[in-house]
Amino acid sequence: MIPSPKSIDFTDGSFVLDETTTIRGDGAAAPVGRWLAGEVRRSSGLPLAEAREATVRLALDGALAPSHYALTVGEAGIRIVGGDLDGVRHGAQTLLQLLPPDVHRRAPIGSGAWAVPHVEIADGPRHAWRGVMLDVARHFLPVREVVRFLDLMAMHKLNVLHLHLTDDQGWRIEIPRYPLLTEVGGWRPRSQVGFRTAATWTERPHGGFYTQDDLREIVAYAANLGITIVPEIDLPGHSGAAIVAYPELGIPGAAPPVVPGAWGISSNVLNSRPETIEFCRRVLDEVIEIFPSALIGIGADECPTTPWEEDPASRDRAEQLGLPTAADLRRWFTGQLEDHLALRGRRAFAWEEALDGPPARSDTAVVAWRGDQAVARAARAGHDVIAAPDMSLYFDYRQSDGPDEPIPIGTVVDLATVATFDPIPAGLSQRARDHVIGMQANLWTEFIDHSRALDFAAFPRLAALAEAAWSGPADVPEFMSRLETHLLRLDVLGVEYRPLDGPKPWQRRPDAVGNPKSREARRAEVHEIVTSGRTTATMRT
Amino acid sequence: MIPSPKSIDFTDGSFVLDETTTIRGDGAAAPVGRWLAGEVRRSSGLPLAEAREATVRLALDGALAPSHYALTVGEAGIRIVGGDLDGVRHGAQTLLQLLPPDVHRRAPIGSGAWAVPHVEIADGPRHAWRGVMLDVARHFLPVREVVRFLDLMAMHKLNVLHLHLTDDQGWRIEIPRYPLLTEVGGWRPRSQVGFRTAATWTERPHGGFYTQDDLREIVAYAANLGITIVPEIDLPGHSGAAIVAYPELGIPGAAPPVVPGAWGISSNVLNSRPETIEFCRRVLDEVIEIFPSALIGIGADECPTTPWEEDPASRDRAEQLGLPTAADLRRWFTGQLEDHLALRGRRAFAWEEALDGPPARSDTAVVAWRGDQAVARAARAGHDVIAAPDMSLYFDYRQSDGPDEPIPIGTVVDLATVATFDPIPAGLSQRARDHVIGMQANLWTEFIDHSRALDFAAFPRLAALAEAAWSGPADVPEFMSRLETHLLRLDVLGVEYRPLDGPKPWQRRPDAVGNPKSREARRAEVHEIVTSGRTTATMRT
Repeated sequence: MIPSPKSIDFTDGSFVLDETTTIRGDGAAAPVGRWLAGEVRRSSGLPLAEAREATVRLALDGALAPSHYALTVGEAGIRIVGGDLDGVRHGAQTLLQLLPPDVHRRAPIGSGAWAVPHVEIADGPRHAWRGVMLDVARHFLPVREVVRFLDLMAMHKLNVLHLHLTDDQGWRIEIPRYPLLTEVGGWRPRSQVGFRTAATWTERPHGGFYTQDDLREIVAYAANLGITIVPEIDLPGHSGAAIVAYPELGIPGAAPPVVPGAWGISSNVLNSRPETIEFCRRVLDEVIEIFPSALIGIGADECPTTPWEEDPASRDRAEQLGLPTAADLRRWFTGQLEDHLALRGRRAFAWEEALDGPPARSDTAVVAWRGDQAVARAARAGHDVIAAPDMSLYFDYRQSDGPDEPIPIGTVVDLATVATFDPIPAGLSQRARDHVIGMQANLWTEFIDHSRALDFAAFPRLAALAEAAWSGPADVPEFMSRLETHLLRLDVLGVEYRPLDGPKPWQRRPDAVGNPKSREARRAEVHEIVTSGRTTATMRT
Repeated sequence: MIPSPKSIDFTDGSFVLDETTTIRGDGAAAPVGRWLAGEVRRSSGLPLAEAREATVRLALDGALAPSHYALTVGEAGIRIVGGDLDGVRHGAQTLLQLLPPDVHRRAPIGSGAWAVPHVEIADGPRHAWRGVMLDVARHFLPVREVVRFLDLMAMHKLNVLHLHLTDDQGWRIEIPRYPLLTEVGGWRPRSQVGFRTAATWTERPHGGFYTQDDLREIVAYAANLGITIVPEIDLPGHSGAAIVAYPELGIPGAAPPVVPGAWGISSNVLNSRPETIEFCRRVLDEVIEIFPSALIGIGADECPTTPWEEDPASRDRAEQLGLPTAADLRRWFTGQLEDHLALRGRRAFAWEEALDGPPARSDTAVVAWRGDQAVARAARAGHDVIAAPDMSLYFDYRQSDGPDEPIPIGTVVDLATVATFDPIPAGLSQRARDHVIGMQANLWTEFIDHSRALDFAAFPRLAALAEAAWSGPADVPEFMSRLETHLLRLDVLGVEYRPLDGPKPWQRRPDAVGNPKSREARRAEVHEIVTSGRTTATMRT
């Protein structure tokens, strides 16, 4: 079972689901009961009718902590109680893992008895934020694939999908007030293939975007699974696609005619004119309408200050505001967005660079990707912080140092690295520790151009992430033995994960070069970035 | 509504689905009731509980013809009766089209009232075989995408998916007895991009295959939707991938070390040794185990005879059997497979070339792709025949003669061409007409390398196919006015169809050339193929 429950106690015997098995979710647990019935019904072909005194029952129990659950399988049937709806959901997911892997099929294939061993399970999560960042900007992912990814997250008891909706290479969210964002910013005529230094290209256009209703659908679907979608509009850097659509948002005269497909960070960032700030506010207002999340992502990462020093409009603005440096102006810009979100009853969610320079609003939550130090700095400053250090949790990084890894970039982020990760840095006070609310894996997609490649990058590392985030750092051999069974589930689900012994022939990418780094080299690089405040296009990859 | 029902009679008023609405499928209709409840529930958020005296009721009525249904919406509620389970299913699909397009969402997005206009509908299909051929050999399509395609077929009342599982460029079905078929034959290191004359390549490997359980899942899922999967193992031509895996099946010494990714037809075909026939029988036996379809596809198309004339083993075999020509040997080979299927209680399903040369078993069903004449020839000879003329129903052919069509090949197969297609050739006797059992669109995938490109090629032409196959040749302007509403449904479903005014910028393929032909040129070419018996690699594209 992955992630492993806090306590699990098998006894002899098993409960067999058959034609007479009935199911019911009591009161608020009714929708989860219906969901569970649907899952088992479609794969087993059993009717699983609803009944008052059902043999499979789900219910809430206020005596349990939120997100916690207890699952009992005995002679009389199956009982799942949760401290809240989330707890019930997690219990239902655990039950699915007690059933044969074929429970994950979309139709019955006639595979034997649906037996569940007698067991007592008590369980709850270690961290509140068990997340994944999905970059749908570099490569668009159709709604159906996002929804499938949500299903896979829920199966792993992950509960936050951070959706990176905009970047230099694409704008993926429909904003009716600014239609060119998607008409112009939603596609690019060509893309680099592999690491940028190789300068190899595909001349095949790439594009796509989500309508507002598509995103509402994703939000509602996620909510049914207990997953929060945290949207991100990356501002004021990584805004190249928006600037191509509306050149007046950027450095005068610097916008290219179409969205460029080069990887790395555009130095054409949003200028700081009042009209540009207003544009950001209006975009965020539409985002807020769609996403109920308390946190709204505003990026704030990797914004080179040099263009602002060179941009007359931004220089004038800084002078007018009495801001001595471009870095202060950048902080001011981010502050405007934080304040606007506060006005709307939301909180800013940003990359940790938001904390560089003058202090940010204390309720701004950040994702720390530059290691333990960054987590500690944010937590000590009183910010909620999510750990996502690149050398542990960047799932675009290579999974081994073998020669067959497709487009190998960054350091080796293997299963053991992920499964043993602990987001809490050593030496933090209790108060600071409480601000480390969890961890997330980041799936940047410069080199992940469709869903099959996403499967390869995400799995089975996502199972290791789930283990570390839900149960705590894993005992690796013990985790690996559970993973063996878990891979059967992923097989049934058609997840094209990276096999433990290396990529399949057709998962290799001899056509595209990477840029692998040693941990030492990368550590030195990150240290230099942190101490110098430098923001360069070499940071991520 | 697409396809349009035989008779539809709207009256004033509407029935509104709300919290009090209940649903029930009586007796054998219970699974369809449960399916319908699931669809409406997930998109509306309404509970749609099951109840004895439900306001939405589904039932069978033996007075109606098979596949026919009657749908009534009135004050008291909704009633669907079908002549059989298929009829009930079609009625349920019609009901979904009477609801707002958002009924196709996977979660509720809060879109107003779920009202259904008062209406009386009586309906039934014109043709029994309303099919699509999907080539998963040239480019593999993950199970989830096949399943999605089945959903879209069912929505359009299409009922046969002809799955082209093997070809020169890939073998996609696991055969445990011959594991190299998928280990070696299931992937290729490189592929041509665009029409073969351009000789441009991607060096990115491509591969994937279905396990037997994956295929059982697809079969069971399809059965729930009333769709039959007709599998095809293409023999003895188009067997290049199998021959790479097991070189002894082909021309001695001619097998390349890896599956080649060039388009066109390999001249290395199966030899006619007893061991090779036995291989085919054993493969077909495994296919039969998985697919309950009465018809089992054996290909029989585009098999150049020259290699057999040059292959000593095949020459010996012909002599031994007393067969004067390689063409007779080819017919003999196909006959062996037909007989083997008959022994197993199944019938052969083949391309119309199976009828070239000495007579085939009369119960062999064929797909005729070379026009009216071919349909007439097969029907007159007493074979069940499915019309799929390339110039009307090849969905890899270009959708307009505009300059923006991606990889334009073949003739223009536009919406009007498809929607007005009639599979029954003029001048057939009633007895011969009865053998024309329907029509299918063919989706060859040399130039369709993932699901987004498949959407573009398949839609909205599949809606036109549904119209012609279910309702008969369409009145084009009237069809187009209904299509407008239908596109909203496809939008909601995330189907990336070809917009009526041409491809979106990111649906273009400036990186890949096509090979467009005029109808006149193609007509002459097909005529020459038919009269000469020539089989060339230029036939399809």
